[in-house]
Amino acid sequence: MHLFSKTMMSISECSDLFQYGETQGYEPLINEAHKHYAIPNNISSMITNGSQQGLDLIARAFLNPGDNVALEAPSYLGALQILGLAQATIHSVQQTNSGPDIHQLEALFSSQKIKLFYAVPDFHNPTGVCWSLATRQQVAALCHRYSVTLIEDAPYRDLRFSGEPYPLVSSFCEDHAIVLRSFSKIAAPGIRLGMVSAPQTMLSPMIKVKQASDLHTAIPMQAILMTVLKDPEFTQHIDNVRTAYQTRYQALKQLLSRLQAYGCQFNDIEGGMFVWLQLPEMNPLTLAESLLKQGVAVVPSNVFYNSDNDAPPALRLNFTHAKPDELEIAVSKIERCLQ
Amino acid sequence: MHLFSKTMMSISECSDLFQYGETQGYEPLINEAHKHYAIPNNISSMITNGSQQGLDLIARAFLNPGDNVALEAPSYLGALQILGLAQATIHSVQQTNSGPDIHQLEALFSSQKIKLFYAVPDFHNPTGVCWSLATRQQVAALCHRYSVTLIEDAPYRDLRFSGEPYPLVSSFCEDHAIVLRSFSKIAAPGIRLGMVSAPQTMLSPMIKVKQASDLHTAIPMQAILMTVLKDPEFTQHIDNVRTAYQTRYQALKQLLSRLQAYGCQFNDIEGGMFVWLQLPEMNPLTLAESLLKQGVAVVPSNVFYNSDNDAPPALRLNFTHAKPDELEIAVSKIERCLQ
Repeated sequence: MHLFSKTMMSISECSDLFQYGETQGYEPLINEAHKHYAIPNNISSMITNGSQQGLDLIARAFLNPGDNVALEAPSYLGALQILGLAQATIHSVQQTNSGPDIHQLEALFSSQKIKLFYAVPDFHNPTGVCWSLATRQQVAALCHRYSVTLIEDAPYRDLRFSGEPYPLVSSFCEDHAIVLRSFSKIAAPGIRLGMVSAPQTMLSPMIKVKQASDLHTAIPMQAILMTVLKDPEFTQHIDNVRTAYQTRYQALKQLLSRLQAYGCQFNDIEGGMFVWLQLPEMNPLTLAESLLKQGVAVVPSNVFYNSDNDAPPALRLNFTHAKPDELEIAVSKIERCLQ
Repeated sequence: MHLFSKTMMSISECSDLFQYGETQGYEPLINEAHKHYAIPNNISSMITNGSQQGLDLIARAFLNPGDNVALEAPSYLGALQILGLAQATIHSVQQTNSGPDIHQLEALFSSQKIKLFYAVPDFHNPTGVCWSLATRQQVAALCHRYSVTLIEDAPYRDLRFSGEPYPLVSSFCEDHAIVLRSFSKIAAPGIRLGMVSAPQTMLSPMIKVKQASDLHTAIPMQAILMTVLKDPEFTQHIDNVRTAYQTRYQALKQLLSRLQAYGCQFNDIEGGMFVWLQLPEMNPLTLAESLLKQGVAVVPSNVFYNSDNDAPPALRLNFTHAKPDELEIAVSKIERCLQ
């Protein structure tokens, strides 16, 4: 918040920022973000109203009703909504602990004309899974071989709190990939700023759709974010966020080990915001509703599946907003429900 | 600009404004806008990324490819683009000096199942036409009789600088109308804020589409606009804008009378931003291109028609950005081209 307030006054004195701007985005912000993420020169970017709009523009620019798209199962709810709105035909590929099941993915790509493969390779929502290096290279090779465009959604990539980062999947198939980045997790979600990056030929039709749909994203917000990204304190800010999340995750991990006695399981994560708690045979929706009445917000597995029937019993736990003592109370309530 | 800078600092200290918000919009802004526009209690509103997004959400929530929609000819370019993107079938109704040709409109409504009628009844873009009271009532009655939803786009309504305002067309057919308002013309365009208003049953599907497409509009921008609308100086600010536009229009009107000698015509306007200069038989695109090379930006008539062939020779002149001496130079250049 401090980082924002520093810049607000200076922005308000630049009257240009309150006039109409370019559809592709505020150029100084795009340049700053390219520097920040070391984006190669052959890749262009557009600023969007959150990365959610980026995905919506991809769907509107490239999909016709009935087009085949692939997703991991489970998958991000917002992606299921947008692809549903676009009337795409959704094909699900089982997720393993190292990413999508490569044999299933190749079987799908070789049997159907798949247009897009949407994925969250870093600290997946809802499972927290981070794809292995081998999976990244294999998926990229498959996208290349079968001419499938990879949509690499990377909102949690900056939130790694242990281990070493892997390259973006798209770095292995740049000509067949569109990358979505979010500033919600490292700056603020209320400003609604994201960025979509791709070779210019793929970006151009998306710019055209955005031009018709809302002309451009609010310029004062973009100018404020640009100043925040440039701020020498920003790196320290992200480090602080990572450390805070790691502390909360460690606390939650400790607490969750108590639930193994009831047949619950979870995998260790190295970043992001979510733990996927696998439950014994039960209805996760009933459990989630009961917990909500007790003031504990968790998301049941079924909302992350294209078909409810495919969902195993599980809960998505977000550990980033709760302090360790709040996590303790929450896990105790889960424990009581399981008893 | 002064009105914005006053509020920027206070906003930056409210950390809630940087978190995720409601899809429908920042409630204090909606309440303030309802007070400002005296919107009746049975009408609900949603804040959008400019009124352009409002129109896009209408198209996405209500139109299937091939659906019939009606527009005045000429019509706002952005509306033609969005309805084209939605693959709607566009039917054009000739505009007269008091609004759409009522006989043509009734013939169309009675012969085709028209879903939406998009119109800009106050100081039309591009013609500056303001619908008469009789036309407003007749159009509302037709929308009611044939169950056509009126899309009343009102971005210039606050810019009346002479004469008395008429009621909104939608005030005569509230159950069959969606109103689009823009804060671009009275506050600032770069903030990308508009508002769409309708009975809740019509608004709900649009909220659902916006939720999937970009979650919500940037909250800090909405909070800043709310503070600006509440500011006692804001009424004075709009009055100043109106007076400035009237002065510029009067200067342009005086200058344009010189062009009558070359067969040009235009109608007097009472507000808005545009004069529609009807030309003698010629290619308006060639004229516009030649003027652009001389530093004069005007828009040729063809872009405002669904079919180029329907466009009479005319130019849209925007008088709001130029000082009287710049208008003098511009009209002299038009005159030289016509000679």
